[in-house]
Amino acid sequence: MTALTIPLDEPGLHHGHIRIPHSADDSAWGHVMVPVCVVNNGDGPTALVTGANHGDEYEGPIAIRQFLWGLDASEINGRLIAIPSLNHPAFLAATRTSPIDGVNFNRAFPGDPRGTLSLKLAAFVNDHLIPEADVVLDFHSGGKTLDFLPMAVSHILDDPEQDARCATAARAFSAPWTARLREIDDTGMLDGAAERAGKTFVTTELGGGGTATVRSAGIAHAGLTRLLAYHGIYRADYTPAPSRALDLSDPAGFHFATHRGLFHPQADLGDTVEEGQTLAHIYHPEDLEAAPKQIRAARPGLLAARHVPGLIQPGDCAFVIGTDDGPLDLL
Amino acid sequence: MTALTIPLDEPGLHHGHIRIPHSADDSAWGHVMVPVCVVNNGDGPTALVTGANHGDEYEGPIAIRQFLWGLDASEINGRLIAIPSLNHPAFLAATRTSPIDGVNFNRAFPGDPRGTLSLKLAAFVNDHLIPEADVVLDFHSGGKTLDFLPMAVSHILDDPEQDARCATAARAFSAPWTARLREIDDTGMLDGAAERAGKTFVTTELGGGGTATVRSAGIAHAGLTRLLAYHGIYRADYTPAPSRALDLSDPAGFHFATHRGLFHPQADLGDTVEEGQTLAHIYHPEDLEAAPKQIRAARPGLLAARHVPGLIQPGDCAFVIGTDDGPLDLL
Amino acid sequence: MTALTIPLDEPGLHHGHIRIPHSADDSAWGHVMVPVCVVNNGDGPTALVTGANHGDEYEGPIAIRQFLWGLDASEINGRLIAIPSLNHPAFLAATRTSPIDGVNFNRAFPGDPRGTLSLKLAAFVNDHLIPEADVVLDFHSGGKTLDFLPMAVSHILDDPEQDARCATAARAFSAPWTARLREIDDTGMLDGAAERAGKTFVTTELGGGGTATVRSAGIAHAGLTRLLAYHGIYRADYTPAPSRALDLSDPAGFHFATHRGLFHPQADLGDTVEEGQTLAHIYHPEDLEAAPKQIRAARPGLLAARHVPGLIQPGDCAFVIGTDDGPLDLL
Amino acid sequence: MTALTIPLDEPGLHHGHIRIPHSADDSAWGHVMVPVCVVNNGDGPTALVTGANHGDEYEGPIAIRQFLWGLDASEINGRLIAIPSLNHPAFLAATRTSPIDGVNFNRAFPGDPRGTLSLKLAAFVNDHLIPEADVVLDFHSGGKTLDFLPMAVSHILDDPEQDARCATAARAFSAPWTARLREIDDTGMLDGAAERAGKTFVTTELGGGGTATVRSAGIAHAGLTRLLAYHGIYRADYTPAPSRALDLSDPAGFHFATHRGLFHPQADLGDTVEEGQTLAHIYHPEDLEAAPKQIRAARPGLLAARHVPGLIQPGDCAFVIGTDDGPLDLL
Amino acid sequence: MTALTIPLDEPGLHHGHIRIPHSADDSAWGHVMVPVCVVNNGDGPTALVTGANHGDEYEGPIAIRQFLWGLDASEINGRLIAIPSLNHPAFLAATRTSPIDGVNFNRAFPGDPRGTLSLKLAAFVNDHLIPEADVVLDFHSGGKTLDFLPMAVSHILDDPEQDARCATAARAFSAPWTARLREIDDTGMLDGAAERAGKTFVTTELGGGGTATVRSAGIAHAGLTRLLAYHGIYRADYTPAPSRALDLSDPAGFHFATHRGLFHPQADLGDTVEEGQTLAHIYHPEDLEAAPKQIRAARPGLLAARHVPGLIQPGDCAFVIGTDDGPLDLL
Amino acid sequence: MTALTIPLDEPGLHHGHIRIPHSADDSAWGHVMVPVCVVNNGDGPTALVTGANHGDEYEGPIAIRQFLWGLDASEINGRLIAIPSLNHPAFLAATRTSPIDGVNFNRAFPGDPRGTLSLKLAAFVNDHLIPEADVVLDFHSGGKTLDFLPMAVSHILDDPEQDARCATAARAFSAPWTARLREIDDTGMLDGAAERAGKTFVTTELGGGGTATVRSAGIAHAGLTRLLAYHGIYRADYTPAPSRALDLSDPAGFHFATHRGLFHPQADLGDTVEEGQTLAHIYHPEDLEAAPKQIRAARPGLLAARHVPGLIQPGDCAFVIGTDDGPLDLL
Repeated sequence: MTALTIPLDEPGLHHGHIRIPHSADDSAWGHVMVPVCVVNNGDGPTALVTGANHGDEYEGPIAIRQFLWGLDASEINGRLIAIPSLNHPAFLAATRTSPIDGVNFNRAFPGDPRGTLSLKLAAFVNDHLIPEADVVLDFHSGGKTLDFLPMAVSHILDDPEQDARCATAARAFSAPWTARLREIDDTGMLDGAAERAGKTFVTTELGGGGTATVRSAGIAHAGLTRLLAYHGIYRADYTPAPSRALDLSDPAGFHFATHRGLFHPQADLGDTVEEGQTLAHIYHPEDLEAAPKQIRAARPGLLAARHVPGLIQPGDCAFVIGTDDGPLDLL
Repeated sequence: MTALTIPLDEPGLHHGHIRIPHSADDSAWGHVMVPVCVVNNGDGPTALVTGANHGDEYEGPIAIRQFLWGLDASEINGRLIAIPSLNHPAFLAATRTSPIDGVNFNRAFPGDPRGTLSLKLAAFVNDHLIPEADVVLDFHSGGKTLDFLPMAVSHILDDPEQDARCATAARAFSAPWTARLREIDDTGMLDGAAERAGKTFVTTELGGGGTATVRSAGIAHAGLTRLLAYHGIYRADYTPAPSRALDLSDPAGFHFATHRGLFHPQADLGDTVEEGQTLAHIYHPEDLEAAPKQIRAARPGLLAARHVPGLIQPGDCAFVIGTDDGPLDLL
Repeated sequence: MTALTIPLDEPGLHHGHIRIPHSADDSAWGHVMVPVCVVNNGDGPTALVTGANHGDEYEGPIAIRQFLWGLDASEINGRLIAIPSLNHPAFLAATRTSPIDGVNFNRAFPGDPRGTLSLKLAAFVNDHLIPEADVVLDFHSGGKTLDFLPMAVSHILDDPEQDARCATAARAFSAPWTARLREIDDTGMLDGAAERAGKTFVTTELGGGGTATVRSAGIAHAGLTRLLAYHGIYRADYTPAPSRALDLSDPAGFHFATHRGLFHPQADLGDTVEEGQTLAHIYHPEDLEAAPKQIRAARPGLLAARHVPGLIQPGDCAFVIGTDDGPLDLL
Repeated sequence: MTALTIPLDEPGLHHGHIRIPHSADDSAWGHVMVPVCVVNNGDGPTALVTGANHGDEYEGPIAIRQFLWGLDASEINGRLIAIPSLNHPAFLAATRTSPIDGVNFNRAFPGDPRGTLSLKLAAFVNDHLIPEADVVLDFHSGGKTLDFLPMAVSHILDDPEQDARCATAARAFSAPWTARLREIDDTGMLDGAAERAGKTFVTTELGGGGTATVRSAGIAHAGLTRLLAYHGIYRADYTPAPSRALDLSDPAGFHFATHRGLFHPQADLGDTVEEGQTLAHIYHPEDLEAAPKQIRAARPGLLAARHVPGLIQPGDCAFVIGTDDGPLDLL
Repeated sequence: MTALTIPLDEPGLHHGHIRIPHSADDSAWGHVMVPVCVVNNGDGPTALVTGANHGDEYEGPIAIRQFLWGLDASEINGRLIAIPSLNHPAFLAATRTSPIDGVNFNRAFPGDPRGTLSLKLAAFVNDHLIPEADVVLDFHSGGKTLDFLPMAVSHILDDPEQDARCATAARAFSAPWTARLREIDDTGMLDGAAERAGKTFVTTELGGGGTATVRSAGIAHAGLTRLLAYHGIYRADYTPAPSRALDLSDPAGFHFATHRGLFHPQADLGDTVEEGQTLAHIYHPEDLEAAPKQIRAARPGLLAARHVPGLIQPGDCAFVIGTDDGPLDLL
Repeated sequence: MTALTIPLDEPGLHHGHIRIPHSADDSAWGHVMVPVCVVNNGDGPTALVTGANHGDEYEGPIAIRQFLWGLDASEINGRLIAIPSLNHPAFLAATRTSPIDGVNFNRAFPGDPRGTLSLKLAAFVNDHLIPEADVVLDFHSGGKTLDFLPMAVSHILDDPEQDARCATAARAFSAPWTARLREIDDTGMLDGAAERAGKTFVTTELGGGGTATVRSAGIAHAGLTRLLAYHGIYRADYTPAPSRALDLSDPAGFHFATHRGLFHPQADLGDTVEEGQTLAHIYHPEDLEAAPKQIRAARPGLLAARHVPGLIQPGDCAFVIGTDDGPLDLL
């Protein structure tokens, strides 16, 4: 049975693991061990903070490790459940999906205690950790194959009170961009699991390319610190910071490749583009005489995400164009 | 026997392949086919221009494909031998080294006509293409695991005349940075093969991370165009552009990781750093209680290259620190 | 959500894709793209024609590509939904089953919109394409491991009207052999999905060995053309051709190997065999002193299918013996 | 449909297979064939005896093969259904889990006739073989990654009559140790499937390390012979032998590693250990300066199982400590 | 040291192995064992007969196994050294090249006793077996990726006496076609190793596609029997049979693909083709709108070999066109 | 260039690495880092002590790590160069041979600075470390596939003085068995490299099966301590211990399997066997009707090594029989 090896309710700072049975060829009675830190002090609310839901996204793990390192329980008021590498097997393998069952962990919720490893882990998070939390922050970035303008994200929710709570929390994170989305289908996502449980939920997209920079890691750490401070869980003053509103809700903003080849972008992240503008040439991978194919902008707007690898294949998301809705008020 | 399927000496623009015998499980009498374009017109010199010597470096292939697309033979004076993806199997596989024999192609020269596939290809380039050239440009970038300040590079050579020729050619490329290096050991490199044959040789490092951006691809294409125009092979005016001198000759500038973990950089490409400054924290991949390890600057200078992947392992090149020697004169 | 990128209902010839979301390590927001051509003209019925349900069967893809190339919408009366490589990932990988989820696509119906990739694709075909069709033709061949006498097949169905429709359609295909079968268990098959929806359904077995010949591809193309002409969808005269009836309904005709080794057949496709006749010797793969094992005919009849690979393993289908029921009347 | 190729009810000794359909890239109409021997003679009860439920456990297959070789049907009174390598694909691959679907076969019950290969096989055993049996013996050992004191095991069952039957059968096996356990969760196990069907069920743990020794194979063969003789199925005198009672029911006896590294055990199988005693040092795999981690005994007792591989990873079962409850009476 | 486990010089029929040391992860002091049969009787010459030089070519192994099974030493006059699966690891893996070192065994001669496994084996054959032989027959077929008209082959040699001996031996084999070739470069081939040692050498190409048929295996067995009888090594009457001369010496007869895609042949094995005739269409693997590419005949003649797999890639040998030089005289 | 990152000649205890350039797909300018500890104190001789020459042999690494942990430089007189995991990539992968180039490291000497990674490392050890040493101890065990009686080994050398030095050093190690051997061919071995350089060389075989026990690790640590103390490098009293002489020089003692199957040993390590005695039965892996094959003792003696895996394949070393030459005198 999947279990947490440390208590959630004892005061102090505790290091342990989510331990998931995994009988495998290299370990007959083995387990996957996901490192967890629980800090319990005072009577404030509980934050559940997770990184590496996808194993190749690094701003979350870095921000959580940086925040935890040297942290004293006295700096917390309430409870912090911190899991720097939630999809730990994928994190160790530097892959988006789990190397054990090939599952995209953010499509595994609400999980299944008798399913594959990812489903067991999702079930434990869904059944035992999310219910304990008031605020849930699940870090994402573009991973090895996408790059994003740095943004915190809240979803458009039916309950206006929860919607406002989540939007405020995303604003409190204060990434350079703050996006609001309505997921057409949130089945399987940790996002929906937390939101349906009524939690204040924030996610992010912070850079990508399978790397982290000084800047992107800094945004992640500052956002985590601000979010916890804003909710009174981290005993520090909340310091407001500017952010711009980003609208990614138009499906026409998503551009998918239909040909395979060498990807030559004509517009970069943050560029403002016109409808019909050429966004990329795709050269045939080996036929020098074939005419390059073009990807053209289906709508005007702000280039908010882009394909990273030098080669592109049919079906890859090449670009996302959104709308810059201008500066948000300071919180 | 490895062969070129098109003539080198007939006027006009010709598309063909270097055809290398490769009997394999999936093709009993198979060959690897490396696409080549030869443009022959007028009495100017010959340029050999190659991309994807390492298969995950994209600025070169893009610049060559962009240059060739729509090119008319009348725009050339002399001869252009253009090979956008020299290490074609690695380019198709998006890997640095050849998926066929695991060889780092830039350690395969002078090659061996009876060796593995990479050695056969290197031998053909060494024996049949380099001898035909006056100017050789071999594009490199950082690939999936390194990122560089964009630079053209010439080597410090014993023959002052050749040394000046190569340095001038690198300056003519006009990347933002122009570096000069002395390779301690150029055994196996295309660079040395071209230089020992007395050719005017230029190489580059233009970005990295397994991607190309509008800016990095633009530097590559502009540099290729300028280099060919400067040597009179491309019938267009040479337009000078600024560049700064970069000195990467100090071995102490190369910083290698000694621990495995999550890589949290503290300095970015282009930053000026002090000796002893912390350049990165490395967090243990799964022990949250272990103290992070530090990489500190062994010398002051300009951060000219950095490790890309979010995880780092012992022996990885984490950073290269060089010296900014200031603006170069316009050519 | 899986979607077709082109309309089914607009006049003219349209090229597009079935686009199936597939978030993977090499494409975070990726999709699998199955090429589709829809030709819509006039008021005739609709044919759904599919190849490469199994990725290593080539007569179907070739016949569809040949038929589509140069086709003008005016040649169609009604609608043609043509999918040359339905199991596109397997077709690209030259494997029977999908390289993405290991699923045998012809056991994936009726599919599941939340299942693995093959199940999503099957659900789309089942829910959105089959309902649009009057006639469904799903091409099969033996693939890399089996070889068949060339045959069109209809199933023995409970509804006499549908049964007659399907049998007539198979006869209209006019392969050298026309078989009728009752599937003991058609769970998961596209066949059953189409038949239960009341469609006129035809499938084939046309050669095999992972290759196509002039003859086998010709039978496929002629059969496709005849089938469409017979149903008035292709504006061309239907030209009748001879065919013989083949009965494969006896379970005793299926011969499975029980030993591993080098397969030495003693009877070829199309041979008439006696009960008890030796059909093959199997030599031990490395023990030269071991006596070869025999496969003997469990019934007399026509050898209609055979194992292809030079080695055989326990459980492989070595031979299928059917009954030649003589020439069919011209349609 | 999965089928047994030999009859269960005809007198005599019959060799055949469980034949499970498995359409794969290397065999379009292929099957997995699990070798089975059925011996039917006289009016005694039926024993179902299985080895290699996990493919890297060898005492069971050896004991069954040794017992079958030279066996004459006249030596049996009743029926023996013997399957030396139940998880035959894993046995051939020398892996714990199935190389075909990655399933741990002892978590696959009651199976599913439409599931993956392991589920189909489990369903056949559950639905068609267990119901035929009176006594079920399923051999286990430690496999490649665990090593056990040699023991026969019966489960503590709610029905006192069945409980006594099973305990007596385990005692009749007369391994050096006889253990009684209550499985907290026997979902998916062949054990539970047999027990819920009311059968007399015995399992074993006999050595491990992916090998068998003269001694461990001898215990297995003697135990099998005794068990069959005791139940009157093997026509030979039952010869009693000593055994000690072993209690493995304390969850605190299971010790899991939390660090990765080189495993240096400080206690061996069969040692008596004190609470708090150091059981192992774990050296960091590459940092010579890092202090080794310790595994300490959480309770006193007898060291009944241990980790085998020289390296250990988080979550591996390092040791199991049980209680020696002294010699059992001769049966 | 590589060794033969049976004597070459003792009378009688002996089964054994070439034993080649191969220390590997799965066998620390392991060896590769190549099965060999030596039959020594009377004072006739010595034949060395080898199959599966390439592991996916089956006519040779079948013919040799069929010939050996039931053979009595008294039927031989002289000596037969028979190796049905010379490249035994590749034969077991059903691959052309060795799964151990990736080497094409027919490019491994004269071998190297300190090289990789294939080189060690080649050295043993070169140094210890070929010198013992008078006649060497090395069976080849097309393997999984090529298909040939069935032919025995002798090389055009500088020494007229040896040339005549070899040509006569090939004629004695009496395959439907008898070809004569001059290898441009026979470096690494068993052929050249045997010829340079002055031996009477015959090779074959007998079918292909990774299978054997009743007909192709029959040609192989009849040819082997005839060759041995002709040289007096097999005590049976030599029975002459018809054959036609085939000239494959024109390099222009070899047609290589330059595009990747679905291969639609327009001419079959044995067809007579005109210069310029379309031999195949190649459809783009996923772009339905792209025009198919053509392969056209570069010369007229007889289509003697063809590409097998349904997909084709650049560099694959698509077709070989030779010249039918008419019937040869009976020997 | 391969380099040691710490000085050999400075007093004190130093941790560092042998750093070998290894440009790979996952690290463009990467290196393999082999951990090394150098302890330099006083004027005694130099010992080079290495473990994990084969990556799956654990007694050496454990003994060296145990010896180093807590060691103070003052305890050394002279110099200790300690490399716990010489073949570090194989040690991390738990494989005998290198996962990078597949090389058996103990066949890689004298190495090649321009060769594959293993050859570069061997060259560094050969050229830069062995010359510095007086005494060389290279630990071996049976690895995953063999198990040995625990023994220290010296080779029979032509130079009587060196021969005596080495034999005395092996005796000083005081494993339960002390063997003397003459290698027929020591090409490529570290052993020969050290011996040809005139060094006092000792190797071991200590257990196996891919694990270490309390006993085997204890023999290794005690032997290392004794060897260093005997040579005055470790400042502790040398305490003599008993050992028996073992003769493994008879080639007839090595028994190799000729059949594939389930391995049922009939004799264990340390047993005394008679000529002709059955040592093992090998059951066919899937044919229950096939008679088991036997391995019989080719000579009488002491069973000193045995095959570990439950399955065996042709060419595997099944057993080694040596001669017990009785107790050796205390040193």
